[in-house]
Amino acid sequence: MKAEIIAVGTELLLGQIVNTNAQYLSRELAGMGIDVYYQTVVGDNLGRLKEALRLSSQRADIVILSGGLGPTQDDLTKDAVAEYIGTELHYDRMAMDKLERFFQDRGTPMTENNKRQALAIGGGTPLSNETGLAVGNAVSHEGTHFILLPGPPKELKPMFENEAKPWLLQHVLTDEVPIYSKMLKFAGIGESALDDRLSDLITAQIDPTIALYAKDGEVTVRISTKASSETKAMEKLDQLQAVIQSMVPEHMYADRDVPIEQVIVDMMADRSWTVSAAESCTGGLVMETLTSIPGSASMLLGGVVCYTNEIKQKLVHVPNSLLEGSEAPGAVSAEVAQVLCEQIRMVADSDFGLSVTGVAGPGYAERKPVGLVYVGIAERGKSTEVHELNIKGNRETIRIRATKALLYRLWRRLSDAESD
Amino acid sequence: MKAEIIAVGTELLLGQIVNTNAQYLSRELAGMGIDVYYQTVVGDNLGRLKEALRLSSQRADIVILSGGLGPTQDDLTKDAVAEYIGTELHYDRMAMDKLERFFQDRGTPMTENNKRQALAIGGGTPLSNETGLAVGNAVSHEGTHFILLPGPPKELKPMFENEAKPWLLQHVLTDEVPIYSKMLKFAGIGESALDDRLSDLITAQIDPTIALYAKDGEVTVRISTKASSETKAMEKLDQLQAVIQSMVPEHMYADRDVPIEQVIVDMMADRSWTVSAAESCTGGLVMETLTSIPGSASMLLGGVVCYTNEIKQKLVHVPNSLLEGSEAPGAVSAEVAQVLCEQIRMVADSDFGLSVTGVAGPGYAERKPVGLVYVGIAERGKSTEVHELNIKGNRETIRIRATKALLYRLWRRLSDAESD
Repeated sequence: MKAEIIAVGTELLLGQIVNTNAQYLSRELAGMGIDVYYQTVVGDNLGRLKEALRLSSQRADIVILSGGLGPTQDDLTKDAVAEYIGTELHYDRMAMDKLERFFQDRGTPMTENNKRQALAIGGGTPLSNETGLAVGNAVSHEGTHFILLPGPPKELKPMFENEAKPWLLQHVLTDEVPIYSKMLKFAGIGESALDDRLSDLITAQIDPTIALYAKDGEVTVRISTKASSETKAMEKLDQLQAVIQSMVPEHMYADRDVPIEQVIVDMMADRSWTVSAAESCTGGLVMETLTSIPGSASMLLGGVVCYTNEIKQKLVHVPNSLLEGSEAPGAVSAEVAQVLCEQIRMVADSDFGLSVTGVAGPGYAERKPVGLVYVGIAERGKSTEVHELNIKGNRETIRIRATKALLYRLWRRLSDAESD
Repeated sequence: MKAEIIAVGTELLLGQIVNTNAQYLSRELAGMGIDVYYQTVVGDNLGRLKEALRLSSQRADIVILSGGLGPTQDDLTKDAVAEYIGTELHYDRMAMDKLERFFQDRGTPMTENNKRQALAIGGGTPLSNETGLAVGNAVSHEGTHFILLPGPPKELKPMFENEAKPWLLQHVLTDEVPIYSKMLKFAGIGESALDDRLSDLITAQIDPTIALYAKDGEVTVRISTKASSETKAMEKLDQLQAVIQSMVPEHMYADRDVPIEQVIVDMMADRSWTVSAAESCTGGLVMETLTSIPGSASMLLGGVVCYTNEIKQKLVHVPNSLLEGSEAPGAVSAEVAQVLCEQIRMVADSDFGLSVTGVAGPGYAERKPVGLVYVGIAERGKSTEVHELNIKGNRETIRIRATKALLYRLWRRLSDAESD
């Protein structure tokens, strides 16, 4: 089964945005065992859009379009597909109801052009939009299956996952042996180091297949297999997962596609554990990362961003003798990392206390090199741990890696505490 | 002049990487006044690559290819272009010298396949690679100009800027009038509202042209014009900028492509102003956003993330009478926003104090609706301002919008203070 992806939008051709949808869709289709031979980007132009449809339907069984479903006259994807396959557009009642409710709730009248978002292609299946107003569509014509998705990634992803994928499985991939995948997530180890550790497995892979991807200090390993039933597939995948886990026992934090902060928030919520943090060079990124997870409010009590020595002393009670003077270890030191996490834990009266202090650059601080970072974890009634990091990269990389390294250490600490 | 971009690489079709090269090249070409009508991604397959060349040369004057210049048998771009235009490949002497030096320096023998990186297209111009080993190429055939660039962005960007762009200006764009642009940045106003305010200008636009795009609570307006010299262009662009600024005086924070936090850090550094923050629902995002700017360490003294009422009382001295009891306004209130920013300013002894308190969801808090947020700004010796926001969207949107709204208010406050 061959597929093509067509992203529609002049903003892509002007380089105003990156086509992350093509990556997401390509990865999802690969996971379903569908080969993608071409990705195309075309502007908001009816003629060129229809030409792209003509070409892609000669080359592919499945054509996935993203973008151009919005309310303005520039949004032409539905018009182009309807014209290309020779059918009419009509208003989808459910999408129209949703639009009307939306404008009623806001107390503003709906302008005429907004109705375009409820247009559906004759003979097709509307795909509902959980997180937006523009309805999607799935329609088959002369052996080619067209899927129309909205452009904003936060609308496209749930629509693909919950509407388009089931439609493809039910209507198009009926004779295919389905492919099943599992995502294994790793932290505290780089992509090439993990590749090294798993190299025997990766070289020998036939079934299941193994693919690695890295992003923002986390590595994802996707293992996939074709099987006649989910039970059979999961048996093979679970076996391989167990082998992988035994080869890299201390780094695999999840067997689903979640960030490590999600696993931490879940673990802490289960045990009603609480946490606080004192951050210097990360400037709030550790707390901000935990806060991004819904439900974190009950476990993250709060904390302090303490750039200056004055704030470190005033709010986290770091003794001046550690910070200033020729004999003092200075703000960027294991000693200060230890005091910061212990003190913030006491101030907040939380079960765990976290700290980060380091040099994010540009420029040295305290004659210490850029990338030198200390992270600390204090625990009620237990000993404190402090780790020294030496991170290569620019300011942004250093701040992200330091945050992820601390979260990785916290995850390990929580795992140990859970097994106590 | 019409151009197309062809990215070559199976890793793109598998969704393993995002095609950021297409964005970079599209933006650069737009800046040179060249229209991009299509972007295509094709795998490491000779037949499909030649088919993509055939299609693009029918449609475009300039075809820019990225990727497939490396040493392996999968790297086929040069082979495909040479076959398509009917010429031979030969080794470029300079590229070969560089390769030999590289392997000599490392003390390892050069394997045969590495020589492929020095291959050049007969009749074309080799483009040297400052940051890598694979030589690029520029070659014209039957009115179409092909530019071959390496895939890694850190090699592609300098080669485009220093080799391909001059080649295009000298050989292809000789008769074109160059295009000049300016980016105007707006905050505190949505894309559609700004579009409304500028609608007369946008409708009447001929020269300069006006384009709007929005991202993360900021709107960018790009104004562009063709002119025989930069001086003439800037005269026209500055005039239009002044008109736009007079139409929306309170929202334009920069006439270059920078985020508002950059402008804030610059303004504060100029005046040696300092700031601190007390954040509830944003969980550190305000401080984290400011921290992302190099040089912010000298103005952001620090602050507090205060999710719980205990932390609000303990670290920021919010009176319990405001937080708890049937008569209390509660943590999410204008009163608490005011106390938070005034107290954190005093605790940190900074010139400005910021606060955010609100309901980011999911789920109501204090019987207050999701999206209700209060932001406050205190200033040494001046009155405090508090703004109520009602933000639609999910947890992430609410946190980002609240942060950007507070930064917008801070920018206005600093602008007023500067003119004092």
